[in-house]
Amino acid sequence: MKRSERLVDMTKYLMERPHTLISLPFFAKRYDAAKSSISEDLAILKHTLASNQDGILETVAGASGGVHYIPYLGQKHADKYLSDLASRIEDPSRILPGGFVYLSDVLGNSQDLRRIGELIATRYAYSDVDAVMTIETKGIALAQAVARYLNVPFVTARKRSKVTEGATVSVNYISSSLDRVSKMELPTRALPKGSNVLIVDDFMKGGGTLTGMEGLVKEFSCTVAGVCVLCEADFDKQKLIDNYISLIKISKIDTQKRIILAEPGNFLSETDFSRFQNK
Amino acid sequence: MKRSERLVDMTKYLMERPHTLISLPFFAKRYDAAKSSISEDLAILKHTLASNQDGILETVAGASGGVHYIPYLGQKHADKYLSDLASRIEDPSRILPGGFVYLSDVLGNSQDLRRIGELIATRYAYSDVDAVMTIETKGIALAQAVARYLNVPFVTARKRSKVTEGATVSVNYISSSLDRVSKMELPTRALPKGSNVLIVDDFMKGGGTLTGMEGLVKEFSCTVAGVCVLCEADFDKQKLIDNYISLIKISKIDTQKRIILAEPGNFLSETDFSRFQNK
Repeated sequence: MKRSERLVDMTKYLMERPHTLISLPFFAKRYDAAKSSISEDLAILKHTLASNQDGILETVAGASGGVHYIPYLGQKHADKYLSDLASRIEDPSRILPGGFVYLSDVLGNSQDLRRIGELIATRYAYSDVDAVMTIETKGIALAQAVARYLNVPFVTARKRSKVTEGATVSVNYISSSLDRVSKMELPTRALPKGSNVLIVDDFMKGGGTLTGMEGLVKEFSCTVAGVCVLCEADFDKQKLIDNYISLIKISKIDTQKRIILAEPGNFLSETDFSRFQNK
Repeated sequence: MKRSERLVDMTKYLMERPHTLISLPFFAKRYDAAKSSISEDLAILKHTLASNQDGILETVAGASGGVHYIPYLGQKHADKYLSDLASRIEDPSRILPGGFVYLSDVLGNSQDLRRIGELIATRYAYSDVDAVMTIETKGIALAQAVARYLNVPFVTARKRSKVTEGATVSVNYISSSLDRVSKMELPTRALPKGSNVLIVDDFMKGGGTLTGMEGLVKEFSCTVAGVCVLCEADFDKQKLIDNYISLIKISKIDTQKRIILAEPGNFLSETDFSRFQNK
């Protein structure tokens, strides 16, 4: 196979399997090519991704070595996308009664989910994450998008018992939007003990739901690897949670005057984008 | 930019934007290259995808022409994946009380969702699909995976009213697993009039939920472009629906003897894989 064809297939192959170690001999056999040629191919791939700041190809040396593709976006991409998203969220028709914001279009748009998934996966690219957790319903799209780029499973906590998932473990949590104690649960077989779990959700007001998920992670003898939300509603001051990352911060919703103000959240300051600058 | 680098970037660019027409001048400008060079690049890409039977690159001639990447898997990939999935589903530990099957691991696995999404997108690659619809909760992962490869939005019908989505349209449907009439609803702004909607769900027993979604599509003055499920439970004879595609057919669940039998569904016979053979 020619180099040009190898490059096309290799790009596709690696992109479909992020965070997965692929050995050089595997590619050498797949393309019936010398290992030295494969190394040159990979150098081209690595260089191209780095120039566009839209991915990292990491080489692992040694007998059990190989290469893995890490979805990773440079700061310019993050700045651009989040500014654009914030201004799209500042559309007054998104304001719903009770200070909620309509986001189902964003969470149902494949191109938005790709970008959001890549960004969150950038933030946690070098953290130990074994699984992504969210709670039904709207967090699922987000969890799936992140899990895709970290290439780990995602699990969905449920707000009510379902017969179709077997035995479950449950915790109580304070649902701040409802101002009452609720229950969330996860099938016992969903999460292996000792997993590092990244918690994600679409919208945070008081943080009660996120705190509930943290409790659920602990019930499974697992560790919280991070907490990340698409939108935080900053004007609600009584937060139950401290350490979290938000992509978008909604600083004001005036339901009377139909004004909504949004800006990029702490994601930009809390993410290390320097990996591209050093290379 | 060298051809080798162009090919890497072009592959990534097109894969991230399936079913989207990209003009030749766009690529020529992006790479500062002659249109003839871009045409040659695209021919290499097209050829490589076709040899692997894992994608189609279609060229549209003329002034407003360009190229679009169509996720499309050959029959050998479909056969292999569905046989493998069926045998994984034949694991007795999946059997839950009431004849349900535990599938959350498959529906939470990024690599499975990629393959399932690509397969369903292959089946409907040349149909008119403007949106994918599902119902919460477990269908969401499936809808998102399909929507990603068709590059259209997906919408989620809810089983109960949520304050965070504004005005809704609802229909009643017969929930066969619960043996009662239930209600499902969708935000009025979720689906534009006249859309062609592909309905997907994770599991079908009687088909009542799918019939409900068909009703919902009609309430929005839209058209059903197709109905596709991951698993059908074939032993339940009283189906409320006729025209559907299933990836996996579960022919037997014996909760006493702990036996579950699964095989590839009608997806294989109902999908036209001939596009690769002609090229």
